[in-house]
Amino acid sequence: MNIPASEYKRVVIIGGGFGGLNLAKALRNKKIQVLMLDKNNYHTFQPLLYQVATSGLEPDSIAYPIRKIFKSYQNFFFRMAAVEEIDAVQKVVKTDIGEVGYDYLVIATGTTTNFFGMKGVEKHAMTMKTVSEALDLRSLILQNFEKALLANEEEQESYMNFPIVGGGPTGVELAGALAELKNHILPTDYPDLDIARMKIQVIEMQDELLKPMSEKASAKALAYLEELGVNVMLNKSVSSFDGKKLSFQSGEVLESKTLIWAAGVKGNVINGLSDEVINRGRYIVDRSSKVKDYDSIYAVGDIAYMETDLYPNGLPQVAPVANQQGIFLAKNLLNLEDGKETKAFEYKDQGSMATIGRNRAVVDIGKIQFQGTIAWFVWMFIHLISLVGFRNRVITFFNWTYNYFSFDKGARLIIRKYKRDR
Amino acid sequence: MNIPASEYKRVVIIGGGFGGLNLAKALRNKKIQVLMLDKNNYHTFQPLLYQVATSGLEPDSIAYPIRKIFKSYQNFFFRMAAVEEIDAVQKVVKTDIGEVGYDYLVIATGTTTNFFGMKGVEKHAMTMKTVSEALDLRSLILQNFEKALLANEEEQESYMNFPIVGGGPTGVELAGALAELKNHILPTDYPDLDIARMKIQVIEMQDELLKPMSEKASAKALAYLEELGVNVMLNKSVSSFDGKKLSFQSGEVLESKTLIWAAGVKGNVINGLSDEVINRGRYIVDRSSKVKDYDSIYAVGDIAYMETDLYPNGLPQVAPVANQQGIFLAKNLLNLEDGKETKAFEYKDQGSMATIGRNRAVVDIGKIQFQGTIAWFVWMFIHLISLVGFRNRVITFFNWTYNYFSFDKGARLIIRKYKRDR
Repeated sequence: MNIPASEYKRVVIIGGGFGGLNLAKALRNKKIQVLMLDKNNYHTFQPLLYQVATSGLEPDSIAYPIRKIFKSYQNFFFRMAAVEEIDAVQKVVKTDIGEVGYDYLVIATGTTTNFFGMKGVEKHAMTMKTVSEALDLRSLILQNFEKALLANEEEQESYMNFPIVGGGPTGVELAGALAELKNHILPTDYPDLDIARMKIQVIEMQDELLKPMSEKASAKALAYLEELGVNVMLNKSVSSFDGKKLSFQSGEVLESKTLIWAAGVKGNVINGLSDEVINRGRYIVDRSSKVKDYDSIYAVGDIAYMETDLYPNGLPQVAPVANQQGIFLAKNLLNLEDGKETKAFEYKDQGSMATIGRNRAVVDIGKIQFQGTIAWFVWMFIHLISLVGFRNRVITFFNWTYNYFSFDKGARLIIRKYKRDR
Repeated sequence: MNIPASEYKRVVIIGGGFGGLNLAKALRNKKIQVLMLDKNNYHTFQPLLYQVATSGLEPDSIAYPIRKIFKSYQNFFFRMAAVEEIDAVQKVVKTDIGEVGYDYLVIATGTTTNFFGMKGVEKHAMTMKTVSEALDLRSLILQNFEKALLANEEEQESYMNFPIVGGGPTGVELAGALAELKNHILPTDYPDLDIARMKIQVIEMQDELLKPMSEKASAKALAYLEELGVNVMLNKSVSSFDGKKLSFQSGEVLESKTLIWAAGVKGNVINGLSDEVINRGRYIVDRSSKVKDYDSIYAVGDIAYMETDLYPNGLPQVAPVANQQGIFLAKNLLNLEDGKETKAFEYKDQGSMATIGRNRAVVDIGKIQFQGTIAWFVWMFIHLISLVGFRNRVITFFNWTYNYFSFDKGARLIIRKYKRDR
């Protein structure tokens, strides 16, 4: 890989998610060369992927070209590459486009879907961790209704069932958006189908939705989903899925052509580091984000496992941790370059929130908890300002305003048909 | 295919392009049942596909869900289906989702790319007739620059050559948009590449660009492209392309990894009708749009070959003909239902136009011809109001305004990598 020579040391960042992005931004035009590697040429705002999947937004609203973000940075380089291995002895990263040396390496690869070893689920279920997966899900949802039109009564239900496994923010927000489609859009799009027979299920192993949030938020999220006609099943575990039948550990069976899997994640671990430094799929890091037992290798965001004073069991895998760790690591790397001591990171919890259809959201900010329309506006405002770039904010804002007043979602396009059973 | 029974006769429209769309709209809630078949669930505004290919617009700006257009029509039905054969004796259309009977059949299938029998071109060249093809082209353009970064000097040029075959509106508009990318966006996106070495070629067999337009328009289009740094080659024919080398009939060779083929179209003819009624890939129709030798079968738009008083050699294959024929055929079908005579169609030429980068366009409206900034604003206005739906117009308008003032194009995302050699 031919990266221009530099008088400064080189930090290689693997991954252009929240952690990598904020680290690189905080190193803007500092005395260090930054090389970011990502298999995509864009940053994805993952919290809104479910809106791409439900025809509310197009990819350009929530994805942002990495080169565009950093176009005025003198010390920043980008290569679209998939990293295959880390050689910590030679201080080299091996990728599908060649090798590159590093002085500092930052692993910010995030997570991928965890199927917990269930092969049938892995083969047949839909996931929503990437733009491409969200577009596939959008196509499949629409294709299901086109197919339901041609099917007999029994098969129709099977096409119109949308079980979502996982009652975290992804599952809850997706269920709310699907319910909006059911209640406002599909009946006029498919006048010759009885859309009332469409069923959305949220299946959660634990005894409440949105487990890490307040009890009030969990209860309200459940009530909101039920108001919207979503069937929430708590304390329920999936045992298998074969593309036609979803089986539960209780022995029950649900006939469904579709299964949406939002039940868990696992770290995108890279070959090359010792298993000793990996704790349940995450790199164990100290308070400076340095990976245990390795010099010059760091990890931030969902892929990092960091215990702190306030979080003795590890920090949560959420975007704000990644953002804060990225910015903090930049300072620590510059400290090292200046011969200073590194400092210890502590996470500042700014709260969490989830939206459930129009006019409904739940917000926890420390001890302050509120729900309903005001929470929904807060949710929209926070997500809008968190998007990268003026253009994306305006387009998203227009789409949301349009969707709100017209009860419509414009992007219900099957651009690439989804072929079942990859 | 289970279409609800109706007391009225059924017209089956194959294709949701300009012709089919306007026909169905003009039959709104009339005493006739309308069934539209299309292999996509959306209408494509083809004149702006080149902006999707060059990262200016996302698909939802130029594609519109067919079900949404017709959601308030009582007599309209849609099925997403690929038509395989017409049985004119049984009056049945055979599709990949089953058969359906018709009383009137309207073929509005438009055209596809014509490679004129050149197998290598067909295998390796990029086309731009569908949203999916435009997205592939967008991915490939961006991938080429990512690859050029890794290549040696000679190979770099090969990745940065963009020969476009065909000097019609598609080729000219695409070349202009590529030149804008070259002049304003790529140099900051790829600071470690010498973008000045990127070359855009327009290759045209005939002796001028935009042949059907006025001489003034053709000359000005040539001048505009040359101002933008595009290399226009007139009187030049391609003989072959193997994915690496583009060979001309003159014997010259251009090293290029990419070839964009906008050189010609052929009708999407459907199996089942006699070869006697096909003239160079188009169904021969009378002035009522009825296909020669067949009762109850009609054709409109690019797929129809109609000679009129003003156009003894056949009408041009352009959107306004399709629009007008669709509306006119609706009246004729209703006349037939009322036991009246059909009327003879005549095309009203409303002019033609093409845009060449920012602030530059050529417009012919009858004897009135003008070029430059005013023409460019006219082009934008006409295209904006021609888009289907308020939402698409607003999003496109915002994107154009944003692009204009920021010299930026937001959608340069490689969502699905394009794999060479399908």
